[in-house]
Amino acid sequence: MPPRYLSFRCSVPWLILLLEALFLTRAFLSIQDAGNIDVPAHFYPLFRDVNHIVIFGFGFFLMVRRRYGFSSAGFNFLLTVLGVQCSMLVEDALVFLRVQHSEVGMRSLAKAVLSMTAVVISTGAVLGKANPVQLIVMTLVELILFYLSRCINRRFLQVPDSLTLRHVHLFGAYFGLAAASRFPRAPPGLDKNRSTPTSDLFSVLGAVFAWVFWPSFNSILTVSRADAVLNTYFALAVSAVTAFLLSALTSRDGKFRMTHIHSAVLAGGVTVSYTAATIQHPWIAMVLGLLGSVTAIFGSHCSQRCFNTALKLQDTSGAHFTFGLPAVLGAVAAVILSVAEEGIATQWSDLPSLGSLIFLSVAAFCQTISTALVTGLITGFILNTKLLKSAHVSKYYDDQFYWEFPHLSVGF
Amino acid sequence: MPPRYLSFRCSVPWLILLLEALFLTRAFLSIQDAGNIDVPAHFYPLFRDVNHIVIFGFGFFLMVRRRYGFSSAGFNFLLTVLGVQCSMLVEDALVFLRVQHSEVGMRSLAKAVLSMTAVVISTGAVLGKANPVQLIVMTLVELILFYLSRCINRRFLQVPDSLTLRHVHLFGAYFGLAAASRFPRAPPGLDKNRSTPTSDLFSVLGAVFAWVFWPSFNSILTVSRADAVLNTYFALAVSAVTAFLLSALTSRDGKFRMTHIHSAVLAGGVTVSYTAATIQHPWIAMVLGLLGSVTAIFGSHCSQRCFNTALKLQDTSGAHFTFGLPAVLGAVAAVILSVAEEGIATQWSDLPSLGSLIFLSVAAFCQTISTALVTGLITGFILNTKLLKSAHVSKYYDDQFYWEFPHLSVGF
Amino acid sequence: MPPRYLSFRCSVPWLILLLEALFLTRAFLSIQDAGNIDVPAHFYPLFRDVNHIVIFGFGFFLMVRRRYGFSSAGFNFLLTVLGVQCSMLVEDALVFLRVQHSEVGMRSLAKAVLSMTAVVISTGAVLGKANPVQLIVMTLVELILFYLSRCINRRFLQVPDSLTLRHVHLFGAYFGLAAASRFPRAPPGLDKNRSTPTSDLFSVLGAVFAWVFWPSFNSILTVSRADAVLNTYFALAVSAVTAFLLSALTSRDGKFRMTHIHSAVLAGGVTVSYTAATIQHPWIAMVLGLLGSVTAIFGSHCSQRCFNTALKLQDTSGAHFTFGLPAVLGAVAAVILSVAEEGIATQWSDLPSLGSLIFLSVAAFCQTISTALVTGLITGFILNTKLLKSAHVSKYYDDQFYWEFPHLSVGF
Repeated sequence: MPPRYLSFRCSVPWLILLLEALFLTRAFLSIQDAGNIDVPAHFYPLFRDVNHIVIFGFGFFLMVRRRYGFSSAGFNFLLTVLGVQCSMLVEDALVFLRVQHSEVGMRSLAKAVLSMTAVVISTGAVLGKANPVQLIVMTLVELILFYLSRCINRRFLQVPDSLTLRHVHLFGAYFGLAAASRFPRAPPGLDKNRSTPTSDLFSVLGAVFAWVFWPSFNSILTVSRADAVLNTYFALAVSAVTAFLLSALTSRDGKFRMTHIHSAVLAGGVTVSYTAATIQHPWIAMVLGLLGSVTAIFGSHCSQRCFNTALKLQDTSGAHFTFGLPAVLGAVAAVILSVAEEGIATQWSDLPSLGSLIFLSVAAFCQTISTALVTGLITGFILNTKLLKSAHVSKYYDDQFYWEFPHLSVGF
Repeated sequence: MPPRYLSFRCSVPWLILLLEALFLTRAFLSIQDAGNIDVPAHFYPLFRDVNHIVIFGFGFFLMVRRRYGFSSAGFNFLLTVLGVQCSMLVEDALVFLRVQHSEVGMRSLAKAVLSMTAVVISTGAVLGKANPVQLIVMTLVELILFYLSRCINRRFLQVPDSLTLRHVHLFGAYFGLAAASRFPRAPPGLDKNRSTPTSDLFSVLGAVFAWVFWPSFNSILTVSRADAVLNTYFALAVSAVTAFLLSALTSRDGKFRMTHIHSAVLAGGVTVSYTAATIQHPWIAMVLGLLGSVTAIFGSHCSQRCFNTALKLQDTSGAHFTFGLPAVLGAVAAVILSVAEEGIATQWSDLPSLGSLIFLSVAAFCQTISTALVTGLITGFILNTKLLKSAHVSKYYDDQFYWEFPHLSVGF
Repeated sequence: MPPRYLSFRCSVPWLILLLEALFLTRAFLSIQDAGNIDVPAHFYPLFRDVNHIVIFGFGFFLMVRRRYGFSSAGFNFLLTVLGVQCSMLVEDALVFLRVQHSEVGMRSLAKAVLSMTAVVISTGAVLGKANPVQLIVMTLVELILFYLSRCINRRFLQVPDSLTLRHVHLFGAYFGLAAASRFPRAPPGLDKNRSTPTSDLFSVLGAVFAWVFWPSFNSILTVSRADAVLNTYFALAVSAVTAFLLSALTSRDGKFRMTHIHSAVLAGGVTVSYTAATIQHPWIAMVLGLLGSVTAIFGSHCSQRCFNTALKLQDTSGAHFTFGLPAVLGAVAAVILSVAEEGIATQWSDLPSLGSLIFLSVAAFCQTISTALVTGLITGFILNTKLLKSAHVSKYYDDQFYWEFPHLSVGF
C-alpha cells in the first residue's frame, strides 16, 4: 500500500523538524550558561551510566522479537534523544510558570534522562504495534504528564523534589499499559512474534548491561551514595537468584525460561529504587529484592493468563510485571519502612504525624498511578484515531515496514 | 527421559532456596550497617568495572559453543550472584571464628566479586558438561576452599590480606582443571562442540570488553593505582600484539586463529596481576605481557596435543592455558622481582632475609596450587557421584537440556 | 593460491615481531617511571572510556560487511595496540629531538590512544581491501605523519599542544580517503559487500556504545570538563534526531535507513569536538550538531553519487562523510566562533590581531588537510606496490582469507 508508506514521509520528518526547531528556540532563548554551576568530578561517570542504561541497555533489552531488532534499538534511541530535549523544554516552561526552581547543568540533564525511563518503559508495552508518529506523540504527551504528576506531588503532597522521580517506573509502566490497551491486538499465532536465539542473546546482553549499571541509576540523585549502591546491589543479587529459582519451579520439567530471567533480574532494582538510600540494614534490601522477583514472575503468569485476557490487553515486552508490579511493591514498602522508622524514632508517641505521613505517601502513590492510568487511556485513544494512521495488525513486529531492508534474508 | 528432567525441578530450585534462606539469615543476624564506613568516590566506578568483567565480560567470553549461549551467559550470571552472597557468608563465618578482621561495605563486596573470578574460571573448564546442580555445589565448595587457602597464606605464610587475592586466577584454573578431569569426556567429533561466526563474535565481544576493563581489576585493591593501571595496560597491549604474532606463526598458511586471540589477549593481564602495583619500569610489565601471551599460545598447543590426551582431560574453554599457565608465570615472576628488588635495596647483604622471602612466596604458591589440585580432584569425584545426576555425554553442550527453547531453529 | 597464503606467514609475524622488539627497546631505554606524576582520580575513568570508544566502539562500528566481522573487530584491535605503542615511540623520538616536552604517565597514554583514532578512521576507508601487512604499514606511517603535522601546527602556527589533537578526525578521514583511492575497486555487485541484520545490529551496538562514551572523548584533555560534556551531549542529541529526520526525508517511502543513522549520530560529536570546551551557550552546540548531521547525510548522498564515481574512489565505511566532512565543518565553525568571541571581547577594535588569529587557524587547518591528502596518496601508492602483496579484488571483504574458519556455515 504505497499511500501508507508515503504518509510517513509527510509526517515523521516534519514532526521531528517542528520539535527540533522548538528545542533550538528554547535553547537560544534560555539565558542559562551550560556548566556554570560546578558538579563534582564523580557525577559525570554516574550520568554516563544512566545514559548507558537508557540508550544501550533498554535498546537491546527490548530486542526480543525476531524481526523487530532495528526498530527496538533505533526507535528507543530516537525517542530518548527527543525526549531529553523535550524534558528541558518542559522544565523551562515550569520555571517560567514559577512552579519550580531553575536548575542548570549536568544535574538537570541527568534528571531529564531519568524521566525518559518512564517513556522507555511505556514504549516497551506498545512495542511493535505503534508506528514512529504514534511513538513520538506518546513520548511528548507522557513526558508532559509525568512532569505534571511530579508537580502535583511536590506542591500539594509535600514530596521533596529529588524523591518525585522515584515514581518513574510506576508511571511509565501503567501509562504504557493503559495506552497499549487501546491498540488492536495482534493475532495470537503470529510467527513474527517469536524470538530467535540470536535476538534472545542480544536481549540478554541488554539486560545484563542494565543490571550491572543499575546501582548508578538508584544512587545518582541521592546524598548517601554508598548506601544506595550497596542496597541496590544486594537487592539485584537476590532478585537474580530468585528469578532462576522460580523459573525452574514454575516451568515444565524444571527448565529455566529466558523470559523469566530477562524480566525478573531487574525487578529487585526497581523495587528497591524507592528506599535504596534510606535502608539501614542490607537484609531489608535483600527481602525487597526477593519479593520484587517473586512479584515479577508470578505477575507474569497471572497477567498472561487472566489479567491480559480479561482486559484484552497485549503487553509486548512485559512492562507490567517487569516494572509496574515491582514498583507498586516498592512504593508500598517505602511507606511501611518510613512509618516504621519514624514510629521507632518517636516511640509511636506521635500518631497524628505518622498518620499524615502515611496519608501523604499513599496519596502521592495513588495520584501517580491514577494519573498514569487515566491519561494513558486517553493517550491510547488519541493515538488510535485515524489521524495518526496506526499500523495494520498484519504489519506488527516488522522492521521492514519502517526501515529500508537491503538484506536478502530477513530475520536474524 | 522424563525422570531426569523432573529431577532438576526437585533439586535446583530447592538448593537455591536453601542457600538464599541461609544468606538472608546471615544478613539479618549481621549487625554491620551497609555503608557506614565511607569509601572514596572513585571506588564505585572500579567496583562496577570488576562487576562488568565478571558478569558481562566472562558471560560472553565463554560463549564459544554454538548451542550453549544461553547457558554460558545465564549460568555465569546465576553462579556469580550466588557466589558473591556465599562469599559474604564465608567471610562472616571467618570473622566469627576470629580468623580474620571484619570489613564492611563496598570494599568487602568488591573482594567477594574478585573471589568469584576463581569460580568463573573453573566453570569455564567444565562448561557444557556440568549441570546446574553440579555447578552450584562446585561454586560453594570452591569459594570455601579458596577462602581457606587464603587464610592459610595469611596466617602461616605471612602474606598480607590484600595480596592473598592475587592467587585467584591460579586457584580457579587448577581447581577447575582437576574437577574437569573427573567428568566423562565428550566424543571428539561432536557437532555441538563447534562454534559459529555469531557465537565467536559474541565471545570476542566479551573478551574485548574484559580487556578494556582489566586495568580496573588489577588496580582496585592497590594503593598505587596509577602504576597498576599503566603496568596492566602495557602488559595487555604487548600480550595482544604477541597473540596476533604467534597466531599467524603457528597456524597453517599464516592465518589468524580466533581462539588464539581470544585466550591470549587476556594472558598478559593475568600474568601482570601479581606485580602490577609494584613494577617500577613499564618494560618489565611489557616483558611479562609478552611471556604471558607466549605461554598461553604454546600452552594451548601443548595441552591440546599432549597434556590433555595423556590425562584424558577436556578443558572446554581453555582455562588452563588462558588463566592457569600465565598465573604460574606471574607468580614466579613476582618472586623473582621481589627478590631482585629486595636484594638491590640491601645490596645482597642480608641473604637470610632474602631466603625467607623466597621460601614464603614459593610456599604460598605451592600451597595454593596443591590445595586447588587436590580439592578440585575430590570435588570432581563428588560431583560425579550418582547423587548429583550428571548429564549424559550426549547431552553435553546443549542449551535445550536446561532451557525452555521455543525457537524453531536451534543454534545461532 | 598457496604461495599467497604462505607469504603472510613470512611477513605479518616478522613485521609485528620487529615492531614489538623496537617498542620493548624503547621502553627499556626510557628512564621515565610509570606513574610517578600523579593524575587525578577521575582521569582513569575518562581514559578507560576513550579506550572503549577506540577498541570496542569502533571495532564493532566497522562491522558492516556480512563476511568481514572477524577482521573488522580483530584488525582494529591489533592496530590499536600496535599504534599506541608506536605513538609512545614517536613521542620519545620527538622528545629526544627536543621538538616537544616530555610527558609521562596516563596522560601521555591517553594522548596516544586519542591519536590512534586517526588511524582507526583511515582503516575504515580501506576496510576489507587492505591486507594486514598493508594495514600495519599504514598505521605506522600515518601515526608518524600525524605527529609531524601536529608538530608543525605547534611550532610554526602557535597551536597549543592540547589543541593539536583536535584535528585527529580530519587527518584520519582525508588520509584514509587518499590512501583508499589507490586501491583497486571492488566490482559493484559483490555479494560479500552486503550486510546482514545481525552484522547491522553488531554495528549499531558499536555506534550506540561510541555515542554514549563520546562526551568522555571530547572532554578528556580539557580543563572545563563540565562544559565540554554538556556541549558534546547536546550536539550528539541534536545530531541523532537530525539523522532520523533526514533519513526519513531522503529515503524512498519515508523509511529510515540504518546506514544513515549509523554514520550521522556521531557526526555531531565530531563537529563539536573543536569547540566543546569553549562554547558558552548550548544552542551553539546544538546548531553545530544539526549542521554536522546534515553534512554527514547529504555528504553520503553526494559522495556516493558524484564524488566517489568521479574520483574512482571506494570508501568502505563512509569515513569521508562520517568523520571528514563534519570535521571540516567543525574546524570552520571553530574559526568563526573564536573570531566572534575575540571580536566581541575587544569590540572589533583590534582587527590586525583578529586577522592573525584567522590566518593561523586557517593555516593549521589547511596544513593538516593537505598533509593528510598528499601523504595519504603517497602512502596509498606505496601500499599497492608489489612488495606488500595486496589482495586480489575477488578476496575483498572476506574473513576466510585472513582467519582460520572452522565454521561450516560462513557468514552470519
